[in-house]
Amino acid sequence: MSTTYPSLSEAEARDAADPLRPWRERFVLPDGVIYLDGNSLGALPKATAALMRDVTERQWGEGLIRSWNDADWIGAPRRIGDKIADLIRAAPGEVMVCDSVTVNLYKLMLALLAARRDSAAGEGGTILTESGNFPTDLHVAAGVARQHGLTLDAAPRDQIAERIGPDTALIVLTHVHYKTGERFDMAGVQALADAHNVPLIWDLSHSVGAVPLDMGADAARFAVGCGYKYLNGGPGAPGFLYVAAEALEFLGSPIQGWMGHAAPFAMTDDYAPAEGIERFLAGTPPMLSLLALEGGVDLMLEADERARWNKAQALFDFLTLLMAARCPDLVPITPQQAELRGSHASFAHLHAWPINRALIEAGVIGDYRTPDVLRLGLTPLYLGFADIWLAVDRLAAIMEDGRWQRPEYTILNKVT
Amino acid sequence: MSTTYPSLSEAEARDAADPLRPWRERFVLPDGVIYLDGNSLGALPKATAALMRDVTERQWGEGLIRSWNDADWIGAPRRIGDKIADLIRAAPGEVMVCDSVTVNLYKLMLALLAARRDSAAGEGGTILTESGNFPTDLHVAAGVARQHGLTLDAAPRDQIAERIGPDTALIVLTHVHYKTGERFDMAGVQALADAHNVPLIWDLSHSVGAVPLDMGADAARFAVGCGYKYLNGGPGAPGFLYVAAEALEFLGSPIQGWMGHAAPFAMTDDYAPAEGIERFLAGTPPMLSLLALEGGVDLMLEADERARWNKAQALFDFLTLLMAARCPDLVPITPQQAELRGSHASFAHLHAWPINRALIEAGVIGDYRTPDVLRLGLTPLYLGFADIWLAVDRLAAIMEDGRWQRPEYTILNKVT
Repeated sequence: MSTTYPSLSEAEARDAADPLRPWRERFVLPDGVIYLDGNSLGALPKATAALMRDVTERQWGEGLIRSWNDADWIGAPRRIGDKIADLIRAAPGEVMVCDSVTVNLYKLMLALLAARRDSAAGEGGTILTESGNFPTDLHVAAGVARQHGLTLDAAPRDQIAERIGPDTALIVLTHVHYKTGERFDMAGVQALADAHNVPLIWDLSHSVGAVPLDMGADAARFAVGCGYKYLNGGPGAPGFLYVAAEALEFLGSPIQGWMGHAAPFAMTDDYAPAEGIERFLAGTPPMLSLLALEGGVDLMLEADERARWNKAQALFDFLTLLMAARCPDLVPITPQQAELRGSHASFAHLHAWPINRALIEAGVIGDYRTPDVLRLGLTPLYLGFADIWLAVDRLAAIMEDGRWQRPEYTILNKVT
Repeated sequence: MSTTYPSLSEAEARDAADPLRPWRERFVLPDGVIYLDGNSLGALPKATAALMRDVTERQWGEGLIRSWNDADWIGAPRRIGDKIADLIRAAPGEVMVCDSVTVNLYKLMLALLAARRDSAAGEGGTILTESGNFPTDLHVAAGVARQHGLTLDAAPRDQIAERIGPDTALIVLTHVHYKTGERFDMAGVQALADAHNVPLIWDLSHSVGAVPLDMGADAARFAVGCGYKYLNGGPGAPGFLYVAAEALEFLGSPIQGWMGHAAPFAMTDDYAPAEGIERFLAGTPPMLSLLALEGGVDLMLEADERARWNKAQALFDFLTLLMAARCPDLVPITPQQAELRGSHASFAHLHAWPINRALIEAGVIGDYRTPDVLRLGLTPLYLGFADIWLAVDRLAAIMEDGRWQRPEYTILNKVT
C-alpha cells in the first residue's frame, strides 16, 4: 500500500490528550485483549464487581428478605428506569426496567394493538418493520401479526417511509441497525408515523449509551432497549421499556403480573394496573442482574454524553482511515457520516467468519454477523486510539499472511 | 399453660442426631437471626457466593463475550432446566429456565389455548382456577381470558373438581397454596382434568424443593415454578417452565423471541421454532441471576429428597406442638397431614401484622400475608429444631407481654 496513515505513536499521542482516557481505569479489561465487542456485551465496570459482591453477600446473604425494603429492591426497576430515562431524555416515570427486550417489545406491541382496537381504527392492517431487522424484532412482530389477524410487512430500509399508510397498524424499527450500523432519522420517521397516526416503537438496543438520544425532542413515544450492550449492564441484563407519559393511560400490559398491580402486596384476587409505568412489570425482577445493570447505568450518567459521542466519532474516523489504508479488502458498510450511524463499524468480506476467528486468536475481539460481516464496536469509555491502531495492525497482518485460511478458523462456532 | 412441651435441650438433642445438620454450614445465615422465610426468599448458599464472584469477575470481566461459548452461558437455560427436571421427576429436555413465573404462565396458557383453537375444541369457554390463588396466577389468567374471549372461573378449592366440565378450556392451579400451605392431590386432580381432556398447568412455586414431586407418576404435563424460594436461587431468580415431551410438538410460544429460534445465530428474517423446549425461550437470559439459580439447584440435587422431606415434616410437627402449647391464640390454618400440605406453616391471628413485626424485631424472620396470616417457612437444610424452639419461645414472649401492640409495629410496611 502506498497510502500513508497515522503511526502508533500518533495514536498514543491522541490517547494522552484524550479527556476520557481516565475512564478506562473504571473497567475490568483482561490483559492482552483489545475488546471491540462492547456493542454485544459491554465490559465489567470495576464498581459493578464490588457492587455484586455487596448485592450477593450482604444484601441477599445477610439481609435476606428484608432487603426488599432495606436495600430498596422493590424500587429498583423504577429507580433504574428513571436513570435510563435521564440517558434518553425521557421524563422520570416513563421508563421501566423489566424482562428482556423481546418480552418488552411483545408487551408494548400488544398494548398498542389493544388500544387501537378500542379506538375507531379497529382490526386488521399491517405491522411495518425493516427486512433484515434484528431477528427478535422480526420474530416477535411475525408472531403478533399472526396471532392478531395482521400482516407483517418487512420492507427494505429505503422503502419504509412510503409503506406507511392507512393500513399500517403499528411500526417497529430498530434505531441503529445491529449489523450495518445504519441509523434512522428518529425525528423524521416519527413525524411521518405521526402524520399517519400510526404508533411507532423504537428498538434502542444499539443506540442507548452509544449515540445521543432525545425522546422528547424527537417526539418518540414508545421504545424498548437493551441493558447489556453499551450500558455495560452484564450478560443478559434486563431490558427496558419507554412509554411517554401522555400515552401511558391508554395502555395496559397484556401480561398482567402481580408486580404490575396497583398494590401487589394487598394480594387481591382482582387485577388493577399500577397507576404509572409500573403496570408494565410482570413477575419478580431478576434482582442480581437488575442491580448489575444499575452499576453500568450509573457510569453512563456520570460520563458526559457529548464527550462520549465526540470520542466515538473520532475513533470511528480513525478506524476508517486505518482500515482503508491497511485492510482495503474489507469493505466498509457503515455510513461514514456520524448522524447516519451508531457506534460500531462493520466491514464486509466473503471470509469474514474465519478472519474474525483469526483476529480473536490474535487478541482482538470483534464479532461476526452472518453472512459476511466483521463488526467492530467502538466504546469510548474503555477504548483508545492505540487500541484501534493495534487492532487494525493485527488485522492487516492476518490479511497479508493469509492466516485466516487455516482450517482451525473455518470450523463453525456455536455463538458469537 | 398447663400443657407440657419439649424443652430446648430436647430440641438440641434432636439437632445433634439430625443427619441433615451439616447442611446448615453450606449456607450463609446472618448472626442473631432465625430465618423462617425461605419460602419467600431462600438463603444464600456459600457456594453461590463464590460462584457469583467467578461469574461476575472472571466469566464476565475476563471472558467477556467469549463466555457465551467458553463458560457455556448459551447452554445454561437448558442445562439448569435439565437439573430442575431431575428434581421434579421430569425428563431431560422437558424443563426450560427462563423469564419469570408470570411470563412463563402467560406463554404456556397462550400456547395451550392456541393448540385448542387448532383442534376441534374451538373457541370460548372458561379458564378455571382457585379463588384466593397467588395473585399473579389470577391476574395473568384474567388478562388472558379477557383478551381471548374466555371467562375466568375462580372457584373455591373444594369446588374445583366439580367445576371441570365440557366448557373448561384450561385449568391453572397452584400445587401448594402460598398462604394456607394446602396442597392439591396432583395425581387426582390431573386425572379429573384428563378425563375431561382439559389441559392443566400446575404452578409449583411453593412445591419445588419443598415437597417430593413426580411429574411422570402424577401424569402432569404442564407446569411453571419459581427459583427464588425453596431452590435458593437468589432474589427474583428466573422461573421455569415444564412441558411433557409428548405435548411439546403441538405447542409454540406466543412470544417468538430470537433465543427460541431453531438457529438463533443464523439470524434469519423468518421464524422457525427450536425443535425442543428451547422454543419457549424469549430474549437473552439474565445470566447473573440464572447462574446464581444453578448454585441453589445443585445443592438441592445433592441433598437427598426423602431426607429433606422427612425432616421438613418433623420440623412441622415440632412447630405445631410448640405453637399449640405456647401460642394458642395463633390458630393453625395449614393441614397437619403431610401429604395435604407444603413446607410452610401458617397461623391466623387478627393482629398477625404487628405480631410479625415484633417477631422480626426479636430476631425471627417469618412473614405476614394479608389479612391475618403469620407464615413460617420450614427449610430442612438450614433450620434445626432449636431454631424452631427459640422462634416459638420468642413468639410466646411477644404474645405474653403484649409487645406487638406498640405503635411502631402497627405502621404499614412496604413489602415484607
